[in-house]
Amino acid sequence: MTQLTDRPATENASTPTPTTAQGVDVVALGQLLLGTWAEARRHSRELVARPEFRRVEGLSMADHRARVLGQLGMLVDDGSVHRAFPSSVGGSEDHGGNVAGFEELVIADPSLQIKSGVQWGLFGAAVMHLGTEYHHSEFLPGIMALETPGVFAMTETGHGSDVASIGTTATYDVDAQEFVIHTPFRAAWKDYLGNAALHGRAAVVFAQLITLGVNHGVHAFFVPIRDASGAFLPGVGGEDDGLKGGLNGIDNGRLHFSGVRVPRANLLNRYGDVAENGGYSSSIDSPGRRFFTMIGTLVQGRVSLDGAAVVASKLALTIAITYGSERRQFTGSSTVEEEVILDYQRHQRRLLPRLATTYAMSFAHEKLLAKFDGVFSGLHDTDADRQDLETLAAALKPLSTWSALDIIQESREACGGAGFLAENRLTSLRADLDVYVTFEGDNNVLLQLVAKRLLTDYSRKFAGANAGALAQYVADQVGQAAINRSGLRRLGQTVADFGSTARSVGYVRDSDSQRQLLTDRVQTMVAEVAGRLKGASKLGTREAAELFNRNQNELIEAARAHAELLQWEAFTEALESVRDAGTRTVLTWLRDLFGLGLIEKNAAWYLIHGRLSSQRALAITAYIDERLLPRLRANALDLVAAFEFTPEHLLAPIALGAERARQDEARAYYDELRASGVKPIDEKTLKVRKPAL
Amino acid sequence: MTQLTDRPATENASTPTPTTAQGVDVVALGQLLLGTWAEARRHSRELVARPEFRRVEGLSMADHRARVLGQLGMLVDDGSVHRAFPSSVGGSEDHGGNVAGFEELVIADPSLQIKSGVQWGLFGAAVMHLGTEYHHSEFLPGIMALETPGVFAMTETGHGSDVASIGTTATYDVDAQEFVIHTPFRAAWKDYLGNAALHGRAAVVFAQLITLGVNHGVHAFFVPIRDASGAFLPGVGGEDDGLKGGLNGIDNGRLHFSGVRVPRANLLNRYGDVAENGGYSSSIDSPGRRFFTMIGTLVQGRVSLDGAAVVASKLALTIAITYGSERRQFTGSSTVEEEVILDYQRHQRRLLPRLATTYAMSFAHEKLLAKFDGVFSGLHDTDADRQDLETLAAALKPLSTWSALDIIQESREACGGAGFLAENRLTSLRADLDVYVTFEGDNNVLLQLVAKRLLTDYSRKFAGANAGALAQYVADQVGQAAINRSGLRRLGQTVADFGSTARSVGYVRDSDSQRQLLTDRVQTMVAEVAGRLKGASKLGTREAAELFNRNQNELIEAARAHAELLQWEAFTEALESVRDAGTRTVLTWLRDLFGLGLIEKNAAWYLIHGRLSSQRALAITAYIDERLLPRLRANALDLVAAFEFTPEHLLAPIALGAERARQDEARAYYDELRASGVKPIDEKTLKVRKPAL
Repeated sequence: MTQLTDRPATENASTPTPTTAQGVDVVALGQLLLGTWAEARRHSRELVARPEFRRVEGLSMADHRARVLGQLGMLVDDGSVHRAFPSSVGGSEDHGGNVAGFEELVIADPSLQIKSGVQWGLFGAAVMHLGTEYHHSEFLPGIMALETPGVFAMTETGHGSDVASIGTTATYDVDAQEFVIHTPFRAAWKDYLGNAALHGRAAVVFAQLITLGVNHGVHAFFVPIRDASGAFLPGVGGEDDGLKGGLNGIDNGRLHFSGVRVPRANLLNRYGDVAENGGYSSSIDSPGRRFFTMIGTLVQGRVSLDGAAVVASKLALTIAITYGSERRQFTGSSTVEEEVILDYQRHQRRLLPRLATTYAMSFAHEKLLAKFDGVFSGLHDTDADRQDLETLAAALKPLSTWSALDIIQESREACGGAGFLAENRLTSLRADLDVYVTFEGDNNVLLQLVAKRLLTDYSRKFAGANAGALAQYVADQVGQAAINRSGLRRLGQTVADFGSTARSVGYVRDSDSQRQLLTDRVQTMVAEVAGRLKGASKLGTREAAELFNRNQNELIEAARAHAELLQWEAFTEALESVRDAGTRTVLTWLRDLFGLGLIEKNAAWYLIHGRLSSQRALAITAYIDERLLPRLRANALDLVAAFEFTPEHLLAPIALGAERARQDEARAYYDELRASGVKPIDEKTLKVRKPAL
Repeated sequence: MTQLTDRPATENASTPTPTTAQGVDVVALGQLLLGTWAEARRHSRELVARPEFRRVEGLSMADHRARVLGQLGMLVDDGSVHRAFPSSVGGSEDHGGNVAGFEELVIADPSLQIKSGVQWGLFGAAVMHLGTEYHHSEFLPGIMALETPGVFAMTETGHGSDVASIGTTATYDVDAQEFVIHTPFRAAWKDYLGNAALHGRAAVVFAQLITLGVNHGVHAFFVPIRDASGAFLPGVGGEDDGLKGGLNGIDNGRLHFSGVRVPRANLLNRYGDVAENGGYSSSIDSPGRRFFTMIGTLVQGRVSLDGAAVVASKLALTIAITYGSERRQFTGSSTVEEEVILDYQRHQRRLLPRLATTYAMSFAHEKLLAKFDGVFSGLHDTDADRQDLETLAAALKPLSTWSALDIIQESREACGGAGFLAENRLTSLRADLDVYVTFEGDNNVLLQLVAKRLLTDYSRKFAGANAGALAQYVADQVGQAAINRSGLRRLGQTVADFGSTARSVGYVRDSDSQRQLLTDRVQTMVAEVAGRLKGASKLGTREAAELFNRNQNELIEAARAHAELLQWEAFTEALESVRDAGTRTVLTWLRDLFGLGLIEKNAAWYLIHGRLSSQRALAITAYIDERLLPRLRANALDLVAAFEFTPEHLLAPIALGAERARQDEARAYYDELRASGVKPIDEKTLKVRKPAL
């Protein structure tokens, strides 16, 4: 249950509440935010506080690439890149800690985070998860030590989202006992690959495995691509992708193969193998399930993008909220002193809901990371666990990466011209994070995957089931209690509370009501689309595809609603663990701002579906504007302090007191001028005017 | 009246309409879009198609700055920068054509557009509009010829939005007959100034004019800052702003002044002068009105940003819609051929409403430019005209610049990884346009200005007036007919059309209904806030400021609604001028998508206020998804072709057939493979499976 310690029974929304800080326990909150793998995060943060890890703005692409490669070497020296790998090769099999540690690298430079991710999280992880013992002992030590910088060669120019349709082939030659890797046309060039333009010495190449005249679908092969001098090996070619919109510390490029031969043993054969005689075997009978199982082992990329988006959002908001608390512009309530811009309602509307979203993203990521660790540690590693993990990652990564772009951009704009200077970091952070919404699964495609999962689960469970079961189903998805129908009816009422904002909002702002409204929306949206798709299985391919396509947008919106609910549940669960009363009060306001913000954003849906009365919809907006924003504004600096960034992490001058120092100097100048008696008189205060020209 | 030639009486939203192209007259539409100053636009487009004007991605900041300076020289050689200037100095006093021509420079490189704008649109225009004949003959020739690259030194580190409070002083020294320009503290340094870091030889410096012990407020002074060698003159200092988030072809920097003396004649004295004896005179009695009159002459910057945002949006959408029409991914309605991604509903939802917004922005900008030209040509130059112009610019510039960022970003994401490559232009276009939402008036601050104007007009006219007069007032604001109350009641009804989407939407999709709904929302929002602010004049300064602040967010939203209505009216007016039936049909769909899209976005407001029934709100969404999107998708390529960009403008390989060529090659390969009989069999099509491992 939500605790609302500050709410007097006679509260009236038309007079503002006193807005003083509530005494947040910043240290405890910081610990809660850093989560289960706080130690790994703190270790990374200490590392990236060192000057040699800092991003240097304005480097040429070549220099930036070289610098980041050097930083990868320092990570090896630090020993922190071994965490995830098998103990057989000196790793510590700590999957959660490994990802947590890598996520924090975004503080220094997103190129560092992503290039590390390419080397150890994609290239290395593919060898680890898709290969077997031979590959581990043969390849992992060189990968871990960065002696073999590598490429994760999955995406092709022609196929990004639809990996199953890639064109590269790996044809088994029985006589030579070799695979022949081949690129049949330009669209099948591997593309956008980190480490491909310059540094990669080998690649894990995804290709259609063909043996004895049968195509067994996409499999991964370990393929050396450059010699020790950096020259392409025979049959291998490529191109530099050149300058990108961001992440220019990574040498993305293209690769193509003309009859390149690798030994049979270079097939990463955990899920499918070819015998000497060319016979194919797999532990997974269905080619489709086999493909998704292989791809699923690489979920780590999505997980870490979700986490990095959280870290970047925290960084941006710390800068913007610090600046907003010091910058002044326009006099309003005084003729002398200018207003602090975060005291303007609009500025609060711009930054504080995004702060609430960042907290929700952070707590939701922590749950994702725990799920990830459970699967890969083997502690909770059933098929269902893996599917849940993949769905959770596919749900959260789109929301957090889109939100990160929105949050960084609003932070940039909220800092005005100063925000546009590279030294204040917001513009490069945004440019670098841009492609996070595209790689490791395009956000729209991922949400469609989530939607399909919601539909599948729905149709499995509700072939003729009643509404109660359906409610339980959506509740199961988020691990919480079922929908209360009478509660919803209560929320939709129009009459009793007419005329009193406080009473109207009183009915909708507690945890249970927020949960009811958010859960019901997901459930109803899924059920509505499922109803419309009902006849699809009886239609022809074209007609079924058209029917599905006509519902695509709403399906994706249903997936988004589902993911938002997951974020809300994670936030609610986290705040229920908080013991300190002041902290809990403030976090409850922040969670309310997140939850009521979602309901406000989708108010039309709630109104149309009779889940909210007009009066209550209006009351929610008034409650946000007149209660939550002022209360949270008073605690905003504590809420960003809990992100625990040091000056060495922030670096932005406007977040480190530059603005306050300038204002103090200006104030002292005017004070002195007034005291001196020689201050010029303002023309507008003169009583007698001269005649005009 | 809207013409809906294709709408059969029995239309049913659950079956899709045939979606064939309607035969848009692309040439005529192109002419309509280029508008009154088509010739100036075409001239600029010819110019920037030349290789020497192209942006070169990846240049160092120093090289980019030098290149853009060189391009400014080429503009001088071309003679096209003289358009706006007085005939007395060889100009042609063509204000509309001048701005139109400059706007198109954004095609080549936004740095080129903005640096030109700094030199001729701000620095030069300040001398022209704030100076008098002496300044014109003395300074303009050098400015026009780029012999005097110059700085528009208004903004200070401490004051951007609130220019009236800048700290720089210009104190008249009677004995020397000079002004002493002085920077009293760090926050008063001039900042973010184009041409200040390197190229500027002189500056128009805005400073508090102090003479005989009286501060007459902000005035502009012509101040030389560097000698012929590029060294600062005595008393002048500065800093380079360094790397920025974009626009790095411009040398932004800071300036400060320590007792720098300029002759009395260097005061740009059109609106305020100081006699030899120090006596101050002005044609404008009120210091406040004088300040806003001076600032108002510089509205050109806002106008041209609005126009450049339109051009950039057209460029981005041309790239994304071309690519979306060629790129294929996933099979759906066929087992062989993949779907064109623009055939996916979600992709249409992402791009087509933004295409509609771009058209609305384009037509609205044309009206702004005509208003601008009317004022500055002297044809329509009353105080009211100037105020209307300023309000219109303040309303449209925020919407178009924010939309441009949104449109370019969605275009980037819609092109996936290819969109992230610098060669495809979307990322740098977005990075450069970023600060358009901040400079020449922060968007939030501008919308607040618009809102205050709405409130002022409202309170002037409706001290006790009735609702009919109020309706007329808002209608006057957009130059259209009054609200029809009975029409609104009809739109809000819930009963009669229940169960039929086609009938529901039939009531709301015609021009009159759209206008009613959009106009009524502005009117009601303004009236609601005005009602809440009613007692403000009786409150103390602090309480009044607090009351205003509690309504700030809604006020700004009212201004946005007003600006959206202006865009909608401009679009509607433009399409009514179209004679070709096919073009008119398609443009009407596009206008409907814009108008209904606005209503859909604000559906909660319409529902809460009883202006729309739930049934009709749902019908609008269904009509967009199932009717408008497929119809417009079929005409999308025509609609971007009408933007008239040539390959030399687009430059992005993905907009010039690269994707199509790759797909043709891949298709030919697979066709040949199938024909050859040696295509491997897919494992999943095999009937008999081998036993698992």
